[in-house]
Amino acid sequence: MRQDLVLNNDKKVIFLILDGVGDIPNPDFSYVTPLQAAKKPNMDDLATRTGILGRIIPVDVGVTPGSGPGHLSLFGYDPFEYEIGRGVLEVLGLNMDLQDGDLAARANFCTIRDGVVVDRRAGRIATEETVRLCAKITAALPQVEGVEVIIRPGKSHRFAVIFRGKGLSDHLTDGDPHKDNKPVLYTTPKDSDAGFASKVVNTFMEKVMDLLQEEKVANGALLRGFSTKPAIPPFASNYGMKALALATYPMYRGIAKVLGMDVKEEPKDYAEMVTMLKNNYEAYQFFFLHIKETDLAGEDGNFVEKVKAIESVDRIIPDIYALNPQVLVITGDHSTPCPLKGHSWHPVPLLLVTRTGERDGLTFHEKNCVAGSVGTLYSKQLMSLVLAHGLKLDKYGA
Amino acid sequence: MRQDLVLNNDKKVIFLILDGVGDIPNPDFSYVTPLQAAKKPNMDDLATRTGILGRIIPVDVGVTPGSGPGHLSLFGYDPFEYEIGRGVLEVLGLNMDLQDGDLAARANFCTIRDGVVVDRRAGRIATEETVRLCAKITAALPQVEGVEVIIRPGKSHRFAVIFRGKGLSDHLTDGDPHKDNKPVLYTTPKDSDAGFASKVVNTFMEKVMDLLQEEKVANGALLRGFSTKPAIPPFASNYGMKALALATYPMYRGIAKVLGMDVKEEPKDYAEMVTMLKNNYEAYQFFFLHIKETDLAGEDGNFVEKVKAIESVDRIIPDIYALNPQVLVITGDHSTPCPLKGHSWHPVPLLLVTRTGERDGLTFHEKNCVAGSVGTLYSKQLMSLVLAHGLKLDKYGA
Repeated sequence: MRQDLVLNNDKKVIFLILDGVGDIPNPDFSYVTPLQAAKKPNMDDLATRTGILGRIIPVDVGVTPGSGPGHLSLFGYDPFEYEIGRGVLEVLGLNMDLQDGDLAARANFCTIRDGVVVDRRAGRIATEETVRLCAKITAALPQVEGVEVIIRPGKSHRFAVIFRGKGLSDHLTDGDPHKDNKPVLYTTPKDSDAGFASKVVNTFMEKVMDLLQEEKVANGALLRGFSTKPAIPPFASNYGMKALALATYPMYRGIAKVLGMDVKEEPKDYAEMVTMLKNNYEAYQFFFLHIKETDLAGEDGNFVEKVKAIESVDRIIPDIYALNPQVLVITGDHSTPCPLKGHSWHPVPLLLVTRTGERDGLTFHEKNCVAGSVGTLYSKQLMSLVLAHGLKLDKYGA
Repeated sequence: MRQDLVLNNDKKVIFLILDGVGDIPNPDFSYVTPLQAAKKPNMDDLATRTGILGRIIPVDVGVTPGSGPGHLSLFGYDPFEYEIGRGVLEVLGLNMDLQDGDLAARANFCTIRDGVVVDRRAGRIATEETVRLCAKITAALPQVEGVEVIIRPGKSHRFAVIFRGKGLSDHLTDGDPHKDNKPVLYTTPKDSDAGFASKVVNTFMEKVMDLLQEEKVANGALLRGFSTKPAIPPFASNYGMKALALATYPMYRGIAKVLGMDVKEEPKDYAEMVTMLKNNYEAYQFFFLHIKETDLAGEDGNFVEKVKAIESVDRIIPDIYALNPQVLVITGDHSTPCPLKGHSWHPVPLLLVTRTGERDGLTFHEKNCVAGSVGTLYSKQLMSLVLAHGLKLDKYGA
C-alpha cells in the first residue's frame, strides 16, 4: 500500500472480526455452513442493501494461519515480513504487560529424573498445581542475574515468563528437548549478542530445578519460543487513524497493543463491548471488535454453537451501525471449519458495508462471497480497499 | 510480461477506451449503472456472441488513478515504475509540443504584495486575462539564460511552461509556497545536476515579476510539477505493433506520444475518428481510440449524459468492427462513478471481443463483468492477454 496517499479524516471504520467465522459445507447439517444456517437478519439486511462481498486469503493460498499472522494481515501488515513470536503471543494471551525490551517465553512444567526429561508435560498437572508452583517460583526468584522475572500460570502444565532487563536478545534456541526421555536441554545463543540472555534463562532453569527438587511430579521447567516485542510500524501512523481495540480475550488485546492501538479494559459481554464502542466513538477513527466464540465453536466442531455465536453477534449489529460508520467490515482472521475442528486455509468470507460500493445485493455467506464484487483478495490488501471506501486515500498521479 | 515471447504479425488490435466508464449503482436511478441503463445493442451483441468479460484494477486495490497511471497501466506499463510528471501532463493537455530534454512545468498567476504571495490564484482571474498576460510574457521573454521559453495559457489563472535547452534537469523543488500568505518561494535543485535548471526557472520567475509589476492582481507566477519527458520503452518495441492514437482531447494524444505512438490530428467527432481509423487501418496493428465524454459526465455526476455518451459510442461500433480486427477491447482507464463525481478505485468493466475466447454470453456491464471469464486482473496484465488473443505471443518452454 502506498502510505504516501493516505489522507486524514474523521470518518469512522469498524472492523467486527468474528474469529474463525469461515466454514465449509457441513455433512451433518445438509451441507450448509454456519453462516448459511444462522438467522442473521441484521447482517443480511446491511449486506443486501448497501454491502459488497468478497473473500480474503489470510496469508497465502493453502496456508493455515495462527492468530498472529491472521490479525497482522487483516490490519494490512505482510504476515511474512512481520512476525509476533510465540513467547510474545503467550504472554499477551495471559494478559501480561509486555514492554519494549522484555524477553518473553512459553514454559512447561516437566518431570526430570537424573537429568533426563521423562515427561515434558509433568503428567499434565492440574491448573491449580501450576498456580501453586508459579507462586512458589515468584516468591523465591523475583530476579535472576539482576534481571526481573515475571511469571504467570496458564492452563494445565503451561505458564509464561517475562525476563525484564537490559540487553536481552531473543536469538536463543529453545531450552526444551522437544521429546521425552532426552537430557535437559539448556538454551544456547544464536549469535554473540545473545550470550547474556542465554545465561539468564539457563540460570533461571537451574534455580527452578533446585527450588522444586522435592516436588514429586513437576520438578523442572522447560522454556521455548523466546521472543521480544516486534518492531512493527504503528497502525495509527500507517493509516492516519487512531485505533481502539475491544476484545474479551487477552491475546487479541495484546496483538492490538503490539500495533500501538489503544486497548480498553475487558468487556464482559457483547452488550458492554457496544457500550464501550459508543462511549469512545468520538475519540477514535478505527475500531477493532474481536469476537472469539465463533472460533471456539469451530475448534470444538460444534456447528450448533457456531450458528448461535453468529446469531448473538447479529443482535448487536443495529446498535453498531446506528453509530453511522463510513465503513463497517464483518469478516474473520481465518476460517475454522467445524468439520476440521481447527484453523484452516480456506478464504474467509468478507462483508464490507459502505456508501461507495457496487451493492452486490446478496446475503452474507461463503457461497455468495465467491460471487461478490470485491473478488478474492489477500487479507493484507483489505486495508487499502477500506481506506478507499473511507475516502482516506488520495488519487495517484495526475 | 515476457517480451521475448512477442510475435510479429499484422493482426489488428483496437482499444476503444471510454474514459471513466466504470460506475456504481446509482441511488437516483433505481440502483443501476450507466452501462446497465444504456441501450447499446451493438456492444451487447458483440459481447454476447463472441465476447469475454472481466474487470481491471488500474493501479492497485483501493487506489484511485490519475489519467497518467490509468493509461500507462492499460498499455502494459507498471504505473508505479513509470510515471508521467505533472508538468508534462499539463503541457500535453494544452497540446504543446514536448520534445526530449524539455523541462515542463505547471504554472499559476498569483498576487504578490511585498514579497508575500497573498493569493496563489490571483483571484482566479478570467481565462482572457491569462491569455493577455501569457502573450505579454511571450513577447518580453522569448528566452532566459539562453534557454527558450514557451508558454501557453490554460483555464482561469493557469498556464504551462516549457523550457527548451541543454542540461535542464527536473530534479527541482516547486517554486510555489503552496499556501497563501507565505513569502515567494523559488526552486532549489534536489541534486548538483539541477543547479542550472534552478537558475533558469528562478530567473524566469523574477523577470515575470518585473514585467508584471504594474498589474493590479496577477503580478507574479508560481511554477511547480517540474518534469521532463519520461524514459519509457516505446510501445511498438514492447509489443511488436505499430500504434496509432486517435483522441479528441490533447492530453491523451500527448500520453500516446510519450509512448511513441503515432498521433493524427484531432478528430472533430466520433464519425471522423472512425474515418481516420479506416484510412490508416493498413499501416498500423494497434489503435488507441480515446473517448472523453464518459468521464466528463461522471465528473459532473450526470447519469443521463453518461448513458448518452455510451449510446453515442455504441453507434460507431458496427463501423469499427466491420474492419474485422482480431481483438477489440472496450474498457476504461479508470472508473468515474456519477455518485462520486470523480475518478475512483473501482475495478473497470472490460469487454474483450475475440475469436479465441471463452464466450461468456453476457451483456456488458459492471455486474456481468464480475462474473466474466477473464476474472479481475490488474490493468497492466491486460496487454499480455490481448497479445495472446491476437495470436502474438509465442509458447513458453517446450
